[in-house]
Amino acid sequence: MDLLLHAPTSRHLYHDIAENLPIIDYQCHLSPRDVALDRRFRSITELWLENDPLKWRAMRSNGVDERYITGDASDWEKFEKWAETLPYAFRNPLYNWSRLELSSAFDITEPLNPRSARKIYDRCNEMLQSPEMSARGLLQLFNVETLCTTDDPVDTLEWHSLLKKEDYDVCVLPSWAPDKVLGLDAPDYLAYIGRLERASGLKITSYESLIQALQVRHDFFAKHGCVISHLSLGEVPQGKLSPRECDKLSRHVLDGDPLLKDNLQKMQLAILVDLARMNHAKGWAQQIHFGTLFNVNTRMCRLLGPGTGFDTIGDGRNARAMAHFLDILDRDQRLAKTILSNLNPADNTWVAAMLANFQDSTIPGKIQMGTAWWYNNNFLGMQAQMNALSTQGLFSRFIGMVTNARSFISFPRHEYFRRILCRMIGSDVEAGVIPLGEEERVEQMIADISYYNVKRYLGL
Amino acid sequence: MDLLLHAPTSRHLYHDIAENLPIIDYQCHLSPRDVALDRRFRSITELWLENDPLKWRAMRSNGVDERYITGDASDWEKFEKWAETLPYAFRNPLYNWSRLELSSAFDITEPLNPRSARKIYDRCNEMLQSPEMSARGLLQLFNVETLCTTDDPVDTLEWHSLLKKEDYDVCVLPSWAPDKVLGLDAPDYLAYIGRLERASGLKITSYESLIQALQVRHDFFAKHGCVISHLSLGEVPQGKLSPRECDKLSRHVLDGDPLLKDNLQKMQLAILVDLARMNHAKGWAQQIHFGTLFNVNTRMCRLLGPGTGFDTIGDGRNARAMAHFLDILDRDQRLAKTILSNLNPADNTWVAAMLANFQDSTIPGKIQMGTAWWYNNNFLGMQAQMNALSTQGLFSRFIGMVTNARSFISFPRHEYFRRILCRMIGSDVEAGVIPLGEEERVEQMIADISYYNVKRYLGL
Amino acid sequence: MDLLLHAPTSRHLYHDIAENLPIIDYQCHLSPRDVALDRRFRSITELWLENDPLKWRAMRSNGVDERYITGDASDWEKFEKWAETLPYAFRNPLYNWSRLELSSAFDITEPLNPRSARKIYDRCNEMLQSPEMSARGLLQLFNVETLCTTDDPVDTLEWHSLLKKEDYDVCVLPSWAPDKVLGLDAPDYLAYIGRLERASGLKITSYESLIQALQVRHDFFAKHGCVISHLSLGEVPQGKLSPRECDKLSRHVLDGDPLLKDNLQKMQLAILVDLARMNHAKGWAQQIHFGTLFNVNTRMCRLLGPGTGFDTIGDGRNARAMAHFLDILDRDQRLAKTILSNLNPADNTWVAAMLANFQDSTIPGKIQMGTAWWYNNNFLGMQAQMNALSTQGLFSRFIGMVTNARSFISFPRHEYFRRILCRMIGSDVEAGVIPLGEEERVEQMIADISYYNVKRYLGL
Repeated sequence: MDLLLHAPTSRHLYHDIAENLPIIDYQCHLSPRDVALDRRFRSITELWLENDPLKWRAMRSNGVDERYITGDASDWEKFEKWAETLPYAFRNPLYNWSRLELSSAFDITEPLNPRSARKIYDRCNEMLQSPEMSARGLLQLFNVETLCTTDDPVDTLEWHSLLKKEDYDVCVLPSWAPDKVLGLDAPDYLAYIGRLERASGLKITSYESLIQALQVRHDFFAKHGCVISHLSLGEVPQGKLSPRECDKLSRHVLDGDPLLKDNLQKMQLAILVDLARMNHAKGWAQQIHFGTLFNVNTRMCRLLGPGTGFDTIGDGRNARAMAHFLDILDRDQRLAKTILSNLNPADNTWVAAMLANFQDSTIPGKIQMGTAWWYNNNFLGMQAQMNALSTQGLFSRFIGMVTNARSFISFPRHEYFRRILCRMIGSDVEAGVIPLGEEERVEQMIADISYYNVKRYLGL
Repeated sequence: MDLLLHAPTSRHLYHDIAENLPIIDYQCHLSPRDVALDRRFRSITELWLENDPLKWRAMRSNGVDERYITGDASDWEKFEKWAETLPYAFRNPLYNWSRLELSSAFDITEPLNPRSARKIYDRCNEMLQSPEMSARGLLQLFNVETLCTTDDPVDTLEWHSLLKKEDYDVCVLPSWAPDKVLGLDAPDYLAYIGRLERASGLKITSYESLIQALQVRHDFFAKHGCVISHLSLGEVPQGKLSPRECDKLSRHVLDGDPLLKDNLQKMQLAILVDLARMNHAKGWAQQIHFGTLFNVNTRMCRLLGPGTGFDTIGDGRNARAMAHFLDILDRDQRLAKTILSNLNPADNTWVAAMLANFQDSTIPGKIQMGTAWWYNNNFLGMQAQMNALSTQGLFSRFIGMVTNARSFISFPRHEYFRRILCRMIGSDVEAGVIPLGEEERVEQMIADISYYNVKRYLGL
Repeated sequence: MDLLLHAPTSRHLYHDIAENLPIIDYQCHLSPRDVALDRRFRSITELWLENDPLKWRAMRSNGVDERYITGDASDWEKFEKWAETLPYAFRNPLYNWSRLELSSAFDITEPLNPRSARKIYDRCNEMLQSPEMSARGLLQLFNVETLCTTDDPVDTLEWHSLLKKEDYDVCVLPSWAPDKVLGLDAPDYLAYIGRLERASGLKITSYESLIQALQVRHDFFAKHGCVISHLSLGEVPQGKLSPRECDKLSRHVLDGDPLLKDNLQKMQLAILVDLARMNHAKGWAQQIHFGTLFNVNTRMCRLLGPGTGFDTIGDGRNARAMAHFLDILDRDQRLAKTILSNLNPADNTWVAAMLANFQDSTIPGKIQMGTAWWYNNNFLGMQAQMNALSTQGLFSRFIGMVTNARSFISFPRHEYFRRILCRMIGSDVEAGVIPLGEEERVEQMIADISYYNVKRYLGL
């Protein structure tokens, strides 16, 4: 089986060009501590299921009791429930990701199901005893060259420092994820501001001092090799504040008083703009995720906390606000390299069309559309994103795949992406939609999207 | 011709698994009276065109005068206009539905067009003389096992009672469709409340007594075998009312005073929540349709009344409101089995992603995405719905097709659905996207989606 | 290479039916002056790149400096940058349009890239010396039969008059594009009103006199052969005004005072309705484009002006407002033939479903969905539009392609459209989705969509 590669040109492009290029994963949710301490895994359950809300959602959909998902069931019990669920997940990306993960990390090609579960469980656990299957071992097994973790501005980056000193083969960089700074209506916002004060060594009593404290941390991140910012917005905020209003509302928030919804958005946009200007000054890229509804299940989020599988796709209108945000920054030529990542695929076309409004000659493909992400990270979602991007913009400049991984064996998602990419372009070549005589350009495009574009884009 | 089944695996799955399974049609708009009285049809026009706004819309699009659509033209004249229109409808689902209907009920395989119209008309009418072509005969011809009609809370359910006593082979169940209860701004709302008072034997003077009256009728429906509720919303209502406000606004409505738009929505949400809690208490499923703009053509609706082909697809934002509605119910664990049915296919992905936020271990696939419905009930719409559902959730738990039929020969829509299902999954198997070694699971999935899932889901 | 035509039936339909039919282009942005004066082109750069924001957007995406796009670089330098960009544009419609344009106008089949650029540049420029490659020559080369330009109500139509007198083989008609009339918030609105006063010979001091002045110009356009109106809206306006409010707000505007956003929309809707009634009275068709965000890049629009590549796709909600607008007109049976053209493809399905709500027996296919337009005018966008239209309505009544061209060599876009059309329908025939026995109807449908439908629709 050569998964997804039916056309000969597709197979050529994948096996001769894409397959063996290293991986640059410009955003993941892996713990730098795990890499620094070279974590070992007691079982495939710990490695695979411990921190994977996508698998949890599938198990809940299959009627599995929460005890076997996030509860106190044993590793085997949890794995068994997963093995019962997976055969119900045909067409869900989890199905083929799991196949690729088991085969590439454990050389297991038999389908996982209730019949094969015990054998596979034992086999994996046995292999996990080997030192090559540690956190670091797995990164090397998957040919990871660079990894950007996702870090809060108050983070000490101590593990990144340690790794840098050690000169570990895989480059593990921090990335700047100031989501909490925008959570002005979060119940623990003032506590967070306190942490930011301690981290920056500055007292935060005004909008100005808030931005100063963030600048201190931004500089700190830059010193630790950060090259990219990530933000995850529900909707893109809008509305204009004068400096005076901005200062007044900031004091309001810092006094612990709630903001009206309109003012909340305006404050968020003000901060967003100042953060974006910092990114521009440093030459960083900035990724903006949007279109999520967070924590929609109150009962479960009370039990399990945020990030446990209850975030979902929203259907808000964001085109005008996004254009406005980019325009504010472009007006005085302080728009950083920007990656727009929508969660609702119904937004694909307007997002893809938005890019060209703000491109310029500082770097080809300065404004990017992020690859299909989270709930879109599947065969159909990736094709839809690539279709939108390639018909609206210059596909050859696309910086390609990112995992947002939470597990050290999630990297075959790059393989999955590259296969879909080569399938698509190979078919185009065989159909004459891409003409004969441009073979070299096609091959370079595949290599660029798989690896070189993102390397150049981030200046690695 | 083996319509849509090009891959050998697709043909195997359809002919050996799906084709001969009975039909459970969990919502139709057929008249239980017609079944109880075993209605006979004087002509193919009466059977096929009398009550089919989709066909009317096609004829209007073809420039046919309303006289030949809903007017006083003869049966033959209407049929002739339909036969002129159909050859202009390639790619519209009406085209292949018509082929399947003519071939399965009348053994006619010749395309219907102006040349063949008279011959086909005469042949059908002749066959309709046969007692086997009555309402009941047609249900049995199409292997219908269970049929849920769509009934108003004030309905007497007398025909359902009669059918139950008779022990007719096809199980004809009522379903609870309280749309009118939510039509607080309808000009005939108070008249409707009067009917509800008479049906329930209760005086409705407050929110509390409104809900009590509905509870009486809900119990009555349960006694008559109802297992499912259907609601059709324009947009999902939102906004919160205190019990006191709720009571106050109800009295306002019951006094015949109009509500502000915001308050209308809030009242609707309050009623919706109480109705949903009744459904949960009974163990019913509840289907929520949303995304429709009703009666957009004032002139024609004045002439012909509602439901005559002037409802259309809306583009409202419903994700946040839907999440909120489900969350209210889940908070105290009174969320019934729920089927979300969007009319705008641009909403497919967020709807498919919404399910997993509210799944639990009471039943696998508790929260469902309804099959492509009404204007989406076509080759492309069904594939789009199945693509969204299968990439976001567990396709194997899908309860499959429903016709919403208005004619006794509409059941080949299940055949059409099953063919598309088997086409899709068969192709996946042949492409290796579903692996070798899981043939049994694949076959079971096809059988489950075609028949067994909905049977278990509704407890039939 | 037979681009896009893999199935034998597709090739038959294209080569034997569609290929040689003339072109009716019901909207373009070509200059009637260029036709009247039979403009000659000094270089391929002038002909191809001078006025093409789509190509500019691609070049900006490739990091090309603005000097080589809209600046003072030489023709060769600009062409060279374009030749560097094009090989990065695989899958973008520009790529295959360019191939078709070079091959059909210049007989060049070699891919354009940096290696071939000089040779192709010289060859094209040499050929452009030939009188056959003038504006008129090119229209005839591409078999253009009728061309509707896009003209402001204040336009003198002098070039159209000249062309009419000359009896030039290609019929060049004006079309009525009153966008500026709706730009009530534009800084130069009063200046525009002044031009309208001069053109109409009427003093504009009230709503009534504004409409009278427009009526004078509308009559003038009709005398010059106009048969269609075009409007480009951001969002479809909504809200109701009494005649008195309407008059009051008009005076407000004519005094140079700004309108509140709500009132702006209401005024726009009032004018829109009156313009639409004029169209109905004349028997014209009216095309309504919507879903655009205009001029989103402030910095660049200040430098280059509007229409330079900084308009983009919006995600506004328009279904309810569109239904309402059509309903107002239909209520007293003054709804003209109407073409709905959405820019956001996420709106395709509701737009396609909207048509049937307002069809009537005055002409088959009275309400049309416009072909995939501007940013949707590509392989995927055209298929998506045709999929939506054909599943919701009667594809056979579709009036087909329009270029919105800005260059005299853009007409191969009709070839591209016809190829995609024949590819789609040919595949359906070979898959049995369209049955054997309807070959004649299929061929007629292809001819109708390519040419005859629009001819009948516009009464040409």
